[in-house]
Formats: sequence, structure tokens, C-alpha cells
Amino acid sequence: MEATLPVLDAKTAALKRRSIRRYRKDPVPEGLLREILEAALRAPSAWNLQPWRIVVVRDPATKRALREAAFGQAHVEEAPVVLVLYADLEDALAHLDEVIHPGVQGERREAQKQAIQRAFAAMGQEARKAWASGQSYILLGYLLLLLEAYGLGSVPMLGFDPERVRAILGLPSHAAIPALVALGYPAEEGYPSHRLPLERVVLWR
Amino acid sequence: MEATLPVLDAKTAALKRRSIRRYRKDPVPEGLLREILEAALRAPSAWNLQPWRIVVVRDPATKRALREAAFGQAHVEEAPVVLVLYADLEDALAHLDEVIHPGVQGERREAQKQAIQRAFAAMGQEARKAWASGQSYILLGYLLLLLEAYGLGSVPMLGFDPERVRAILGLPSHAAIPALVALGYPAEEGYPSHRLPLERVVLWR
Repeated sequence: MEATLPVLDAKTAALKRRSIRRYRKDPVPEGLLREILEAALRAPSAWNLQPWRIVVVRDPATKRALREAAFGQAHVEEAPVVLVLYADLEDALAHLDEVIHPGVQGERREAQKQAIQRAFAAMGQEARKAWASGQSYILLGYLLLLLEAYGLGSVPMLGFDPERVRAILGLPSHAAIPALVALGYPAEEGYPSHRLPLERVVLWR
Repeated sequence: MEATLPVLDAKTAALKRRSIRRYRKDPVPEGLLREILEAALRAPSAWNLQPWRIVVVRDPATKRALREAAFGQAHVEEAPVVLVLYADLEDALAHLDEVIHPGVQGERREAQKQAIQRAFAAMGQEARKAWASGQSYILLGYLLLLLEAYGLGSVPMLGFDPERVRAILGLPSHAAIPALVALGYPAEEGYPSHRLPLERVVLWR
């Protein structure tokens, strides 16, 4: 059952969002998680490859193991949900028919497949991992905004040992692990976010 | 003057968004661009480094040159605005005082600076570029959702020669160029987006 909730407009969500590391004990309804993930998975990616994969972890023992892999950070265990965002370019490239638009048929479809394979043929494994991670961060941007818009607090994390996370979840050796995201209903305000002024980052031509 | 416009909720924006490559001739008001960019720049990044930089290109001659760098794709010249998203980790690392939270002072501040420098010390230039690009894609996710929410059509692009874009805009040699984004008021519907089903991408633990 789709949870129909008031969802913030994108601007308010972006301006309001802070990283949240303390959560109420309340579980996050699966229907809500599905609704948010369905929207996040609409993120665009180059060639529509969608190399991102997500493990939704709610099991206490797995969260405890992930906490150790994240150098003991308490919120990984305390959050009702931890998302493990990983990127599997090999799986995406092995199933191009799943992602090439159904409107592209025949010779055009075969030509697109070959062009995609050629683009990655010369890339070593680290470059492939970095490429797929990059695309997965587009999804992460969508996801963080959507979580805020639905009233959930979250913190994206890079502070973990990817090999331990890989082992805990049995992820393929070629997969990159761009981020963990701990999330739940907020039980703190979080730090006011501190950003560079627009003029420091944006040039006008 | 901040343009107060109806802004879509984040879910509707995510579900509705399609890549748009044809635009009305109407210019995009600078106030609106600033409002959208201010919100997008709230995106989180590891250590709050914000390695992203954006060149907002509206000048016809520059857009024409970017079109050539993008293998002749017409929408790069026809769009009222093209954003060039680049990543400059060296600039970010050279100005850590600008990004470390003002709430962190004294020894803690110095320790954080050293920890950040150590994290990148062992990284070669390609790995540094990939890392900064990855973070910039989080901003790209925010940006694409916000553009849709404000009623602007956009298409993120990877199909360009980064060295030619670098030369056109005079960007530093160490900068990565994760994407161009052509945008404007939509003059087409765009292709219905085609995504993998949730169960293909999400595992529940």
C-alpha cells in the first residue's frame, strides 16, 4: 500500500536538509521505503545503464556488522534502516537489453550495444568502478533529496571499509561501494549546513 | 529578485522528469537560475569539500564552441543555458578553511585538515579527478530534480571532448568535467523514461 504523505517541494527539501545521525526507534514502513526508492530509481544515467544497486538493511545483526565495518560509528547500528549503495557495471553491461529503450530496435539496438561495450573495453577495473560509482552518486543526490522531502533524516557515509562491507553482504569483487546511507525518523536537529557562497562556485559566461 | 514560482514536490519531479533536448526560445531569468543553483549547492559532499564548480554559459559564441566540443549535438547551441559542471579538488584542498564547519575550531580544526590532506595524499591525479567527479554527481542529482521541479527541461551529457571544453572555458588542467547540462523551457515531451524494476536493483536484508 503506497503511503500517501505530504511531500516537500524540492527547493524546501534541498534548503532544509541536514545530515541526521540520531533517529527515533520507529520503524520506517516498507511501503514508504518502496515509494521513495521507486522515485529515486528514476534518476538518469549515461546510456540509461543504471549501474546502481541497493541493499536495504534492517536486520540488527547485519547492521551491527556494518557498524564495525564503518569504524564503530553508532548510527549505523542505531538507524532503523541502512542502505548500502553499490555499483555493478559488469551486471549492467551483461544485460544491456534490459536498459536500452524499447523504442530502439533492430540494427540501431545492436549498434548501441556495440558502442556501449566499446566505450568500456579500454577501461581498467578501477576506472570502471569509478565510472559506475560516479553514476551512482546521481542516484544518491535524488535519494537524499527524496528522503528529506518525505520527512526522513539521513546521512550519506564514505567512512567505512569497503572490503568488510563486501564480505558482510557477499557483494561481487568487481562491485564498487560508493556510499552507505543511514536513515530514520529524525531525533536531532543536525548541524546547520555550511556551504560555499554561490559566487565562489559559479561563473557566468 | 527571487522568482517565487510553484515548485513541484520532489516525488512528482522525480517521477515526471524526462531528458529534454528541445527548448522554447524564452530566456531563463537569472533570478530563477540563481534560486535553483542556491538550492542545488546545498548538496552534501564528503568532508563538506564541495569540489564542484559550475560555468553558466548563455553567450551564443561559447555555446557554439561547446556544441562542436560535444560532437555537433544541436541542443548544446540551441538551449538558452548550458551548465558546465566541473570538479576542482585542488582548489577545494587549497582552501579547507572555507569548507570546514565554523563550529570546528582550534586543534580539532587542524586535525580535520590533516586527516583530509592525508586521505588524498596517496591518490594519483586520475583517482583525484574520479573522486571529485563522483561527489559532483551528487550535486548533479540535486540539480536535475530541482530543474524539473521548477518547470525547466534539461539533459545531462557525457558525450563531449573534455579537453576541448577545458580549452574553450580555460579550465585548469587538473579539473575533471563530469557533465554538461543543457536546459531551458521544454519544447518537446521527451522519451518516456525506461528504468529497471525495483526488484531488479534492490535487495532486502
